[in-house]
Amino acid sequence: MSDVNRQIVLEQLPQGPLSPDHFRLTEGERPRAADGEVVVKTLYVSLDAANRAWMQGATYRSAINAGDVMAGGALAEVVESRAPNLAVGDLVFADTGWQEYAALPAKRLAKLPRLEPLTHLLSVYGVAGLTAYFGLLECGQPKAGETVVVSAAAGSVGSIVGQIAKIKGCGAVGIAGGAEKGRWLTDELGFDAAVDYKAADFKRQLREACPEGIDVYFDNVGGDVLEACLFGMKTFGRIACCGAVSQYDGDAPRHGPRGVPGLIVTKRLSVRGFIVSDFDDHRTQALADLQSWVASGQLKVQEDVIDGFENLPQALVGLLHGENRGKRMVKV
Amino acid sequence: MSDVNRQIVLEQLPQGPLSPDHFRLTEGERPRAADGEVVVKTLYVSLDAANRAWMQGATYRSAINAGDVMAGGALAEVVESRAPNLAVGDLVFADTGWQEYAALPAKRLAKLPRLEPLTHLLSVYGVAGLTAYFGLLECGQPKAGETVVVSAAAGSVGSIVGQIAKIKGCGAVGIAGGAEKGRWLTDELGFDAAVDYKAADFKRQLREACPEGIDVYFDNVGGDVLEACLFGMKTFGRIACCGAVSQYDGDAPRHGPRGVPGLIVTKRLSVRGFIVSDFDDHRTQALADLQSWVASGQLKVQEDVIDGFENLPQALVGLLHGENRGKRMVKV
Repeated sequence: MSDVNRQIVLEQLPQGPLSPDHFRLTEGERPRAADGEVVVKTLYVSLDAANRAWMQGATYRSAINAGDVMAGGALAEVVESRAPNLAVGDLVFADTGWQEYAALPAKRLAKLPRLEPLTHLLSVYGVAGLTAYFGLLECGQPKAGETVVVSAAAGSVGSIVGQIAKIKGCGAVGIAGGAEKGRWLTDELGFDAAVDYKAADFKRQLREACPEGIDVYFDNVGGDVLEACLFGMKTFGRIACCGAVSQYDGDAPRHGPRGVPGLIVTKRLSVRGFIVSDFDDHRTQALADLQSWVASGQLKVQEDVIDGFENLPQALVGLLHGENRGKRMVKV
Repeated sequence: MSDVNRQIVLEQLPQGPLSPDHFRLTEGERPRAADGEVVVKTLYVSLDAANRAWMQGATYRSAINAGDVMAGGALAEVVESRAPNLAVGDLVFADTGWQEYAALPAKRLAKLPRLEPLTHLLSVYGVAGLTAYFGLLECGQPKAGETVVVSAAAGSVGSIVGQIAKIKGCGAVGIAGGAEKGRWLTDELGFDAAVDYKAADFKRQLREACPEGIDVYFDNVGGDVLEACLFGMKTFGRIACCGAVSQYDGDAPRHGPRGVPGLIVTKRLSVRGFIVSDFDDHRTQALADLQSWVASGQLKVQEDVIDGFENLPQALVGLLHGENRGKRMVKV
């Protein structure tokens, strides 16, 4: 075990689009566990659009400040323990930040099962899979035969949302950038249709894919795509608000979508925001469902694993540009 | 009974603010009932901000077109019946439009009790009271001790929302235009605080009135006031979307409020649109509650009755400018 702790610091807060130049690779000393703490070694760092949102200010967590080790969740292994609930070798998911080692209070950490491949603990059995599951089923309340639309459909969450919609007997329409991603959604993942938000005729494509309107829209992006879906919603439709990736990589947006609140009233829509930890009470059932769907082949898991700690900044920037298919992570 | 049927026609659709010049008084023949129909005489016409929204296009009802008799609900009395469920002298609430007599299919009409004063059938026991009741209690789900904010608080719906909030043990904050309306809300209706949306320091007033944030926001206005409340919401807050009167008297707005969907996600808000008829199944209970609160003096009913059919256009324009306190109607 090295005494050196490689770290990536957010050197300056981005004003416009994020670039790798905003980060700096540095080295610290490997931390030691204080009483009640563990030291973990980071194995896989999760890349999430929300990482960028944290740079805009406080959200459901405090803001990231210039000079901080970049924040982020990771699959990590305990290498030193001064806490009763965790032993050396245990796996945990933790907000380690972008560094090789982190000392953390043990009481908020839970031991994860050592299943294969380990990466599934960050994708389908991690935040991405649970976010898709709870957002769709709890906030979206889809009924068999309804039409579910999801944006960022080729991403870690969206690719699972559409597949769960199919498992539940719904029609699934994915919104993603480019025809190639669209083909992947329909040909590989079983979506009924894909719509290219970068195409000039995006709105027409969306209408054609949902000729009777949208019952459930799972929103990962906000902005113009949310606006188009608002206009396409059916009466009594539900919108699950999961994120707003279109609005993260720049200043905070100056306006919301047209149709708010007018369309919400006239169509009697329910719009609900959530984060995955709101549903911690139902985790066990959710993981059991996800595992059975993966085992039966109904749910395909797509992961995008990039090798090398030093590639974290570029991996996040690329994710914000829509490079990834499925869950992106960096192997440390 | 006159054979003449005075009518007010929407001569042209407004492009900008509505004015009395958009209407024309005309006369037709009193209609006769066909089989299954009744002819009703209009007693009191309800004035509602939604009347203006109907001119912007189809909503939960079809749009009003230039040349149509202006649409609107009214308390009316059956003067001729060719239907089994209604007799001459029965009272109904119906979309008569702005005319003295209307022939209507009887099967969608329900006889109202002849209580005193009759005007309460249009205010507290009509659409206004039921809208306040269902919007607050079903969509807002307020719990005792929470803070409820309502906009257009001196209007027909808002004035009742705040009082029901108090009855349910909540704090009630009303947003209205001008200090005089605010004093009326606190001194006469028992609101805990009033906030003047026309004041330069509106946002500061709102923060001071809700130092711990807003649990339930009942939105009648949309626009900048909705935006300010979004920023003031507490985590897991609920917004009941009832209307958007700030956005009716002009072209359809180009943008929605800032913070959509960002604040909805990070605060995990529930935003729900509704119209009163969505809750028809619970009408009986609602009316019983409203009647008991009126009887006990817990719920004060404020009505703004204008005399004279020909005053309808000016009455609506004035309502859109916030002239009224409580339920505005025109006695025909």
